[in-house]
Amino acid sequence: MPAIDPDRLLGDLRRLAEFGRYRTGVHRPTYSADDVAARAWLAERMADAGLEPTIDGIGDVIGRSPGAGPRLLIGSHSESQNHAGWLDGALGVIYGLEVARAVQADPGSAGGAIDVVSFADEEGHYGAFTGSRSFCGLLEEAEIDRLANRYDGTPLRTALERAGYAGRPRAEIEPERYKGFLEAHIEQGDYLESSGLKVGIVTSIVAIWQYRILFEGAQNHAGTTRMAVRKDAGLALVRLAAAIDERFPEVAGERTVWTTGRITLEPGAPSIIPGAAEMLFQFRDADPDRLTLLERALEELVAAADAAGPCRCRLEAVARSVPKLMDPHFQDALEQAAERHAPGRHMRMPSAAGHDAQILAQRVPAGMLFVPSIGGISHHWSENTADEDIVLGCQVMATAAATILGP
Amino acid sequence: MPAIDPDRLLGDLRRLAEFGRYRTGVHRPTYSADDVAARAWLAERMADAGLEPTIDGIGDVIGRSPGAGPRLLIGSHSESQNHAGWLDGALGVIYGLEVARAVQADPGSAGGAIDVVSFADEEGHYGAFTGSRSFCGLLEEAEIDRLANRYDGTPLRTALERAGYAGRPRAEIEPERYKGFLEAHIEQGDYLESSGLKVGIVTSIVAIWQYRILFEGAQNHAGTTRMAVRKDAGLALVRLAAAIDERFPEVAGERTVWTTGRITLEPGAPSIIPGAAEMLFQFRDADPDRLTLLERALEELVAAADAAGPCRCRLEAVARSVPKLMDPHFQDALEQAAERHAPGRHMRMPSAAGHDAQILAQRVPAGMLFVPSIGGISHHWSENTADEDIVLGCQVMATAAATILGP
Repeated sequence: MPAIDPDRLLGDLRRLAEFGRYRTGVHRPTYSADDVAARAWLAERMADAGLEPTIDGIGDVIGRSPGAGPRLLIGSHSESQNHAGWLDGALGVIYGLEVARAVQADPGSAGGAIDVVSFADEEGHYGAFTGSRSFCGLLEEAEIDRLANRYDGTPLRTALERAGYAGRPRAEIEPERYKGFLEAHIEQGDYLESSGLKVGIVTSIVAIWQYRILFEGAQNHAGTTRMAVRKDAGLALVRLAAAIDERFPEVAGERTVWTTGRITLEPGAPSIIPGAAEMLFQFRDADPDRLTLLERALEELVAAADAAGPCRCRLEAVARSVPKLMDPHFQDALEQAAERHAPGRHMRMPSAAGHDAQILAQRVPAGMLFVPSIGGISHHWSENTADEDIVLGCQVMATAAATILGP
Repeated sequence: MPAIDPDRLLGDLRRLAEFGRYRTGVHRPTYSADDVAARAWLAERMADAGLEPTIDGIGDVIGRSPGAGPRLLIGSHSESQNHAGWLDGALGVIYGLEVARAVQADPGSAGGAIDVVSFADEEGHYGAFTGSRSFCGLLEEAEIDRLANRYDGTPLRTALERAGYAGRPRAEIEPERYKGFLEAHIEQGDYLESSGLKVGIVTSIVAIWQYRILFEGAQNHAGTTRMAVRKDAGLALVRLAAAIDERFPEVAGERTVWTTGRITLEPGAPSIIPGAAEMLFQFRDADPDRLTLLERALEELVAAADAAGPCRCRLEAVARSVPKLMDPHFQDALEQAAERHAPGRHMRMPSAAGHDAQILAQRVPAGMLFVPSIGGISHHWSENTADEDIVLGCQVMATAAATILGP
């Protein structure tokens, strides 16, 4: 069994967190100077571990093991959300590095090897899963031409130029090289913590179904227009959102989540009755039947609102992903390893967030492991996981990797 | 009795609508090139009518009658809302001009005279009632220093410079010069039209009580955060807005109106649970007791939302104006004139919109007359009033003016 080195693991994680440090977290947006410096450092650490590192034309850092024999790819992303946590993505990358080192040093794992990867832009400063999609052959040049930073508008091409990545070839996965892909991540929720558990074995990555709901009324003067004759698009929106709040718990599964992330009233002035309104709404679930039920409920509510008047109400589907299943054998290997190192303190669970593993799963078998998030906090600089949970999770991944590489 | 000239009245209104024409309406924002040109044309028309025109340091156009004797000031504003109607403001200014001409020509009105005014920026591209407040001594230089265009940020000082008004003295009302102020305006609602009436005699200009309602929750990941532990500030807002929608009809008077004009969720991203939310809410009524009742109801709803949790909810009063009463004698004079020219087809009514008359009422007796708005449309380029209603309203105002000037 490969034995990880807790101090080396935590040391590398802490060193990585110095790139773009922000309070107790990091601010390391994709292709920022700190992100580029962190990727260069990662490549050095891969070389130190005997891997052959490249940073490719999209910024993916890939460390290939020189030997032949069965291989696993392990990793995640190393850029962060803005002013966010030190572990989101970074944990999975450094786990890859540490498991690669532990497998190399383990006589029992002779012949097997680990490649390590840090994908670029999983967090979507430019696109979404930009690096892993590139690696899986799912990112066209034309899309790269089109993408721009969603905060400051910098074209992706310009950012790649500044980072020094422009003109390099983009690496693409050779599926036959790998038994599959493993990714570790903080849970970002509080199921594990609130259940006193240490390891989550991901069964699937939930689907996200996203909608724009559009309301059309009549813009008018907020003083002179009687209540009885108004067509207030904002009020129509409020009534529908309240109806969703009433109805969705009746059709939701135990882990269904739904969110209105944005509301816009037009023109948005205090003394004008909104003539148009829009809400961005989404729900997530791992069960395709449940997703269909939820959409049907939403369609019924929107149709009822439209029929009730006086405003028109229209539903527009923005995106409907399908749940991405993790490989059952990988789940078994992770569960056996978890039972070995944390008996009775693990559970199988869906991932309610998106991860690079859902992209990799389109080309090779994929598996994911979660460690607990303190307070379930995520996408915030105060995100954290106890050191002992970080160490435990890495050992579980190393043991599972050895099992998968097999004799 | 002074007799107005319908063709001259309609001709001047149509000529004014050529400045900044937009479809069947106008786009003539305060201090835009079209607004400045329109003010210069107005000054010329005042001179043609034997008045002594000045355009002052804030852009107010004032045409003073040369004679002695009792005087009335009549007017409104000549800039428009963006892409809005041709009559909102313009009607009241051209009524002033036409009544001035009719009174001059009327042997029975000898000795009395009309001054005509077009105030600047009633519509609030920079401030609110900027011109009439200046004229009434209610606009400090320091506020002029501070104000800027709410759409493009141009400082008011810069706009005045470009318009050629900077450095001119600002005119201030001499209250002893006037028996009072009269303003005509389109109704902007549909009370008159839906009742088959032709003239509204304004009793008071309603108070507007405005609030920000602030919600504080916890920003988190829209996938990984279970419904049960969320503190969704946007959802808290929706629930309060729905509660207002339920409760306000029970405490509202017949003419109370209430509006949520803007909703903001922070950070406003599709996959992030809003950590903060804000709504701009206002209600209007002419009855001070009713206003107090409405505020109490709002306070109770906000307190209940805050107590129910999980988000904090806080009410912040932005502005509480008091209803501005129109002079009772002016109301009587307008009503008598309306009964003479449109027997049985007039009503007393509050104004649910703000008007320059509410500012003037702070210095001199003030009265207002409404003409019907087709379909109640306002602040939109399709705003309109039938020619015969425009003519009738002006004749009513001329007759009322003669009565007020008296012998």
